[in-house]
Amino acid sequence: MNDQSKKNILVNIESPADIKHLSMPELSQLADELRTYIINIVSETGGHLAPSLGTVELTIALLYVFDLPNDKIVWDVGHQAYPFKVLTGRREALKTIRQYGGISGFPKRSESKYDIVGVGHASTSISSALGVSVAESLLNYHNHIIAVIGDGALTGGLAWEGMNNVGILKKQLLVILNDNEMSISKNVGSIPTYLNRIVTTPFYNKIKDDLWGLTQNRKILRSILRTSKEMLKTMLSRNVMFDELGLRYIGPVDGHNIPSLVYGLKRIKKLNQPILLHVLTKKGKGLKAAEDNPTEYHGIKGNGAAKHISDAAISYTNVFGKSIIELAQKHDDIVVITAAMTDGTGLKEYAKAYPNRFFDVGIAEAHAVTFASGLAIGGLRPVVAIYSSFMQRAIDSVIHDVTLQKLPVIFCLDRAGLVGEDGATHHGVFDLAFLSMLPNTIVCAPKDGDELRNLMHFAYTVKDQAIFIRYPRANTKHFDISKPIQLPVIGSWEIVQKGKDIAFLALGSMVEHAESVCQILKEKGISSTLVNARFLKPYDKAMLDTLAQDHDILITLEESSPRGGLRDTVLGHFQNSIQSPTVRSFSLPDAFVTHGKRDELIKDIHLTVDEIVEEILNIVSQSM
Amino acid sequence: MNDQSKKNILVNIESPADIKHLSMPELSQLADELRTYIINIVSETGGHLAPSLGTVELTIALLYVFDLPNDKIVWDVGHQAYPFKVLTGRREALKTIRQYGGISGFPKRSESKYDIVGVGHASTSISSALGVSVAESLLNYHNHIIAVIGDGALTGGLAWEGMNNVGILKKQLLVILNDNEMSISKNVGSIPTYLNRIVTTPFYNKIKDDLWGLTQNRKILRSILRTSKEMLKTMLSRNVMFDELGLRYIGPVDGHNIPSLVYGLKRIKKLNQPILLHVLTKKGKGLKAAEDNPTEYHGIKGNGAAKHISDAAISYTNVFGKSIIELAQKHDDIVVITAAMTDGTGLKEYAKAYPNRFFDVGIAEAHAVTFASGLAIGGLRPVVAIYSSFMQRAIDSVIHDVTLQKLPVIFCLDRAGLVGEDGATHHGVFDLAFLSMLPNTIVCAPKDGDELRNLMHFAYTVKDQAIFIRYPRANTKHFDISKPIQLPVIGSWEIVQKGKDIAFLALGSMVEHAESVCQILKEKGISSTLVNARFLKPYDKAMLDTLAQDHDILITLEESSPRGGLRDTVLGHFQNSIQSPTVRSFSLPDAFVTHGKRDELIKDIHLTVDEIVEEILNIVSQSM
Repeated sequence: MNDQSKKNILVNIESPADIKHLSMPELSQLADELRTYIINIVSETGGHLAPSLGTVELTIALLYVFDLPNDKIVWDVGHQAYPFKVLTGRREALKTIRQYGGISGFPKRSESKYDIVGVGHASTSISSALGVSVAESLLNYHNHIIAVIGDGALTGGLAWEGMNNVGILKKQLLVILNDNEMSISKNVGSIPTYLNRIVTTPFYNKIKDDLWGLTQNRKILRSILRTSKEMLKTMLSRNVMFDELGLRYIGPVDGHNIPSLVYGLKRIKKLNQPILLHVLTKKGKGLKAAEDNPTEYHGIKGNGAAKHISDAAISYTNVFGKSIIELAQKHDDIVVITAAMTDGTGLKEYAKAYPNRFFDVGIAEAHAVTFASGLAIGGLRPVVAIYSSFMQRAIDSVIHDVTLQKLPVIFCLDRAGLVGEDGATHHGVFDLAFLSMLPNTIVCAPKDGDELRNLMHFAYTVKDQAIFIRYPRANTKHFDISKPIQLPVIGSWEIVQKGKDIAFLALGSMVEHAESVCQILKEKGISSTLVNARFLKPYDKAMLDTLAQDHDILITLEESSPRGGLRDTVLGHFQNSIQSPTVRSFSLPDAFVTHGKRDELIKDIHLTVDEIVEEILNIVSQSM
Repeated sequence: MNDQSKKNILVNIESPADIKHLSMPELSQLADELRTYIINIVSETGGHLAPSLGTVELTIALLYVFDLPNDKIVWDVGHQAYPFKVLTGRREALKTIRQYGGISGFPKRSESKYDIVGVGHASTSISSALGVSVAESLLNYHNHIIAVIGDGALTGGLAWEGMNNVGILKKQLLVILNDNEMSISKNVGSIPTYLNRIVTTPFYNKIKDDLWGLTQNRKILRSILRTSKEMLKTMLSRNVMFDELGLRYIGPVDGHNIPSLVYGLKRIKKLNQPILLHVLTKKGKGLKAAEDNPTEYHGIKGNGAAKHISDAAISYTNVFGKSIIELAQKHDDIVVITAAMTDGTGLKEYAKAYPNRFFDVGIAEAHAVTFASGLAIGGLRPVVAIYSSFMQRAIDSVIHDVTLQKLPVIFCLDRAGLVGEDGATHHGVFDLAFLSMLPNTIVCAPKDGDELRNLMHFAYTVKDQAIFIRYPRANTKHFDISKPIQLPVIGSWEIVQKGKDIAFLALGSMVEHAESVCQILKEKGISSTLVNARFLKPYDKAMLDTLAQDHDILITLEESSPRGGLRDTVLGHFQNSIQSPTVRSFSLPDAFVTHGKRDELIKDIHLTVDEIVEEILNIVSQSM
């Protein structure tokens, strides 16, 4: 019987129950099939390939040993859960992953009973798994709760807070540390170094054994050891940190060896206490290119993706990357901070050019901001490059350590607005609301790449205030770094085109969208003014008054939740006016938006150019 | 020469320079004088007494050894910095501490050049001190940067994120762990347990010495030890956790022994690397009552404070404390989570009554929320009791782990609005903005104690949604737990009094304020409707429409920043109406509000009853 005649196993796995009767060789075969299946599909669809290739064997071993859905697995971040999705009834559905109407790229409660916790951001798994475990204990259930967390996510403060409480509550909880020495970028911080030392101490087992032997023969040593069990434990383990935190450390074990994983998990299953199992995996395992370049293969675009990008376009991310180098060349005191997103925020080149003025602090957004405040106190001009949705994790640091202190920290918020396939956890839709509430703060958004560059140079001129520049995960047609820099006046808006009937006030990404709307309206005989409302705070009061005098209707457009952004700014402005203009508004909905291509999402939320035109024609006809 | 004839030293200390020439006995005398001085003054003024009594000797030793203001001290939280304030030119000013127009109860950058970092929330010091240290290193300064952090604040995730980066950046930074086994309430978590074990291992030094001896004689052991320096380090230190994180651990030392502190700090001053100095102090040191009851003496009211509280009144905090017990009696699945604020949030009695259904997670707000989401997933009904300003630290946990997951977590936000003497870091003024932006979320505020109780019982009936109940640091005249519970209809407002000219829409604490306004207006012939706008989200659309029809002017009042609250809700509601009513609004300013008594602050921001009346008379005269 040759390999080809082997019966395909994966095709018959409809739920975890179908795995439990397989033999060890069959489990290994399943791993091979699963890995091939995921590579084939994700190469087409795009998605988080490398992380998911690293967890194939671990997922199989977990589903083999534990009894789902009664036992429960919480995946940290969740981008490594593709094998889990396939084996929990979503084999065919994987073909739709991250697509509009398809399954999510992350665990999602509404998608499957096996997705006990919905997720997308890092470092939450220990806390939420602990909550589930405590609840089950109080309700007298006896299921096993497992959190799987990567070594990168362990640098997040929330993971620390979680571990600190795991140790004290002493409930059953298995924390599996999926250690691939890599979160998205290369990990930074002491924790990864510490983990690495555990793994690379070849004498560990020898010394452990030898010392045990010694205590049999050496009376003095044994008597000393006996005086302190704690000392003994310390001596015999390099892994005291987790032990000190109250988690029994077990490992490290090979995360690609199913029999050894199964053996270990079966033993652990009998222990009713907090345990940290240290598993070594290889990100991108089984796909040579991904193993060699795990950062590039962390998330990949599908085969169809490239054709959507026009040659003339450049992403805002790249504009930031080029402009920050220019800014740093010009000003010696510029330093840049990112939280594990060197590539994602476009800082790869900058990091090479200015290694001493670049700080990747790991997955630690609050620290990134508070650290930046210290850098500003120390006399430097820090630029924090961060995604809009991750800014949500550091709001108190912004308030307490930056804004209240009147420190001139520059924040460049990538991924503001709809991000596409990553979906609800990653859309950057709340930033305008939680930033415009802050006193003494500048909030702005460029209409194109040139303006992003100009705003960054403008930001450098700001003293005693934080400034936030938000821009989308999108391309821009307009960027030429050889142009002279034009510094905008603080709070000033820009008239893009002058008309008379309607005035459009568009913020950031919506300027281009509004241009298309204006074009169609023009064809229908409606003359529009289009204003680039690039500053949300402070805003252009004088221009707003003039616009209200000269136009029947003002229309606000913003890629943001409906509360707290441009709409509320404009409505608030006219609150105390004798005569208020008619103001109509377009924004994202007051609801979480699903995943899919940007175009599909814009359609999903009824924000297409055609729909806006239709709505405006309605408004115009009503007001006449 | 007897003690009384001793020259008073403290009276001549105008700056840290005046300390540096003192002898050891004089330093000790200074400590005694300083302690007495602080006790005498803070007993009158009120303030954070116990924490500051614990740092008297440490502060003196730091100022003696280091050279301020070039060397820089960052105080975590800052409530232990009263001795520092006195010795850095604010001896007389201490008499005004926390008072309107006086000095702040926390370090404040605008107050003194010695207050290098402004602060008030916990766990930020390592990150900001690291920032300062890195900046000075890049700018080629060679000053010493010191962070002083309590063992309680060490449980916060931000401190962990900071330590993780201290180790890797390898800059000079002295982290002083001020270990008093007590943050505000008794500490919880593995870290305090770990610290306690370090301190209570009596064999530590003996074993260390003995093992060193052994290695001289025992060839085999020595050869083993030589194979791994790391192993040796582990064996010889119980304090590997900090070492593993890249901070050289030194300690523990007696934090009340000035000569030993000075000796240690002088040695450390020569080391150019990250160091953790473990200092043992006693909270409330020197005041018997405070030593015995450090939690009660953490923050004390001044001698004059009691008279402001009427006998008939009860605080909202107490109403919550009594109502949560009632709720837990009624429903077995209620569990309560607090982040180191058992007393502050009114949970002392509950914690005693339901120890198994109570979780103090330490200073770890994000974990509190994500842990609660896990409890809800597990089938319980978690209530998170948290201050409004500390809620700022867990916004992503609310979005990512609760709201997006449609989990019915109940949040009770104490200290919403102006908190008084604690000032800008503690005012809870942004919650309405950052909560009303969330989809699928209920945000409400009771007008009095009875309504807080009713809203809590209402909250239990809510499924698949988070609900936030915000209430002020204030007393309420209306609370009777024997009354029948009245569940409000979701989103419904309540007409408190019916008039015809003006309609007041008041949120929470502002209902009582508006009642006084209405009373005066009535005397001036203006008839007002007063509405208790208890639900901000969802709100009472039908009533709002009716009010607009029946009244010339609508007035919104809220104890909140101007953005994102009731004002914006009402303006947004009428945006698309054919005829918009005149809406005028009263709120806190778009600025950080200083510290002082609530009455003084209300006056400071021009929100007194008289000022509102005057403003409304203006509005009325203009619109006629």
